[in-house]
Amino acid sequence: MPKIGLVAGGGKFPVLFAREAASQGYDVICVAHVGESDPVLEEVCHRLYWIRLGQLGRLIKILKKEKISEVAFLGRITKTRMFRDVRPDLQALLLWRKIKDRHDDAILRAVAQELEKEGIQVIESTRFLKDLLMPSGVLTLKRPNAEQWEDIAFGYRMARAIGELDIGQCVVVKDRTVLAVEAIEGTDETIRRGGRLCGQGAVVVKVVKPQQDRRFDLPSVGLKTIETMAEVRAEVLAVEADEALFFDRAEAIGLANKLGICIVGVTPEVQAHGRP
Amino acid sequence: MPKIGLVAGGGKFPVLFAREAASQGYDVICVAHVGESDPVLEEVCHRLYWIRLGQLGRLIKILKKEKISEVAFLGRITKTRMFRDVRPDLQALLLWRKIKDRHDDAILRAVAQELEKEGIQVIESTRFLKDLLMPSGVLTLKRPNAEQWEDIAFGYRMARAIGELDIGQCVVVKDRTVLAVEAIEGTDETIRRGGRLCGQGAVVVKVVKPQQDRRFDLPSVGLKTIETMAEVRAEVLAVEADEALFFDRAEAIGLANKLGICIVGVTPEVQAHGRP
Repeated sequence: MPKIGLVAGGGKFPVLFAREAASQGYDVICVAHVGESDPVLEEVCHRLYWIRLGQLGRLIKILKKEKISEVAFLGRITKTRMFRDVRPDLQALLLWRKIKDRHDDAILRAVAQELEKEGIQVIESTRFLKDLLMPSGVLTLKRPNAEQWEDIAFGYRMARAIGELDIGQCVVVKDRTVLAVEAIEGTDETIRRGGRLCGQGAVVVKVVKPQQDRRFDLPSVGLKTIETMAEVRAEVLAVEADEALFFDRAEAIGLANKLGICIVGVTPEVQAHGRP
Repeated sequence: MPKIGLVAGGGKFPVLFAREAASQGYDVICVAHVGESDPVLEEVCHRLYWIRLGQLGRLIKILKKEKISEVAFLGRITKTRMFRDVRPDLQALLLWRKIKDRHDDAILRAVAQELEKEGIQVIESTRFLKDLLMPSGVLTLKRPNAEQWEDIAFGYRMARAIGELDIGQCVVVKDRTVLAVEAIEGTDETIRRGGRLCGQGAVVVKVVKPQQDRRFDLPSVGLKTIETMAEVRAEVLAVEADEALFFDRAEAIGLANKLGICIVGVTPEVQAHGRP
């Protein structure tokens, strides 16, 4: 059986990847993160090793011992934990010192380079999961109104600019004003904050960075996103089409339809035109 | 006596302005905002009118009746209230429709233009308050270390970029990662969020926007900023020198010295050099 490596963060994405790769005949060798990764991976994967955030030396040792030549990085790493719980091993420390620019992507790219030095290729995280990509267009019964299309176009420009700075992927806007910008607190927190600040009717925009490395940290939304929006009566979710991932699609659209929330897949053209 | 107009938001800045202008022989005619402005203005100003956020027609009527030819806009308008409590009058509504880009500055500039049409000039808000400008250099006993200087330089670049997008003036960073970006929640909230996310040692950077209109909304810090930093054990406050305002300077520096916090006035050169 061919082998494929999986370095797993939190969330469902690694589990879906492992299931799909296994069903296509791969032995999935998983390196999971304590406190982040879903333990169900133990059942889904051929073999699983637990490591802690920062154990780069151990990660490489495992992949080499398993003779892995291709590995995918999938799933959320709670970024706030990177400032609290990391116990880097020697190899991680050496790498950390070498990285000048400590944006997410820079860190992940540096890790990928270390792996590549060892002959291990980091592959696109969507290799087995093309079905999860966000489609373009309005996915819900409710459609954005003219004002909301303007806010989507505005929010898209702002979110792209924030992404270009490598700060985050999501903004919450209303009336062409940015209410909240995501940095490392995560999308749900950002939606709650922005949504509360405007009382009702927030427009949430989540995009891919212009310089996004498709191997890492693709933007994603799912049922939980809609639940969080419902908490603060936000009304529109616009997500980068063909690039971002949309989990629990049927349930998420079902809930959105019940609540009168719009979900829209948008491409860069939305900046120029607003309403497509 | 010469007259000067004062459109007052919240905070101490309008009060300080009114006191100084009065001491220089001006009759200060103040238009204050209900729920925002300090009632002590009633004692300090020659005459005072209360309006609500959004009463642009009424504002102009008052200034014309008083034959004001120069007016300053001073003090904080709680931006979150703009989405909840505004009851715009007809003139405000007409103006609101005309503004395409509803960034802070765009709104204020549009208001200033309306006033100018009526022969009322909006002046720089620091006209009477040059002493409040942030000096450059390290103001505290504690000096930033080499890592912190790098974070100051990084944070300055990020905050400038955020300002250029007209999103906000402040970022919280650590280890060349942006932990929190200020949008409309205000600086104290941003410091709390970013500070908590990193546990300890956050670096707070507050700058002027590259395109800042000096008549409005200059960035400011004060004793409260240091108190908020202390809550979350943040360690460095870097503020744009010669442009931002520093209130309660002696008390703020005193508290910072007690807590081992650094306060630094920085200029754009900090981006290139880090440590000056």
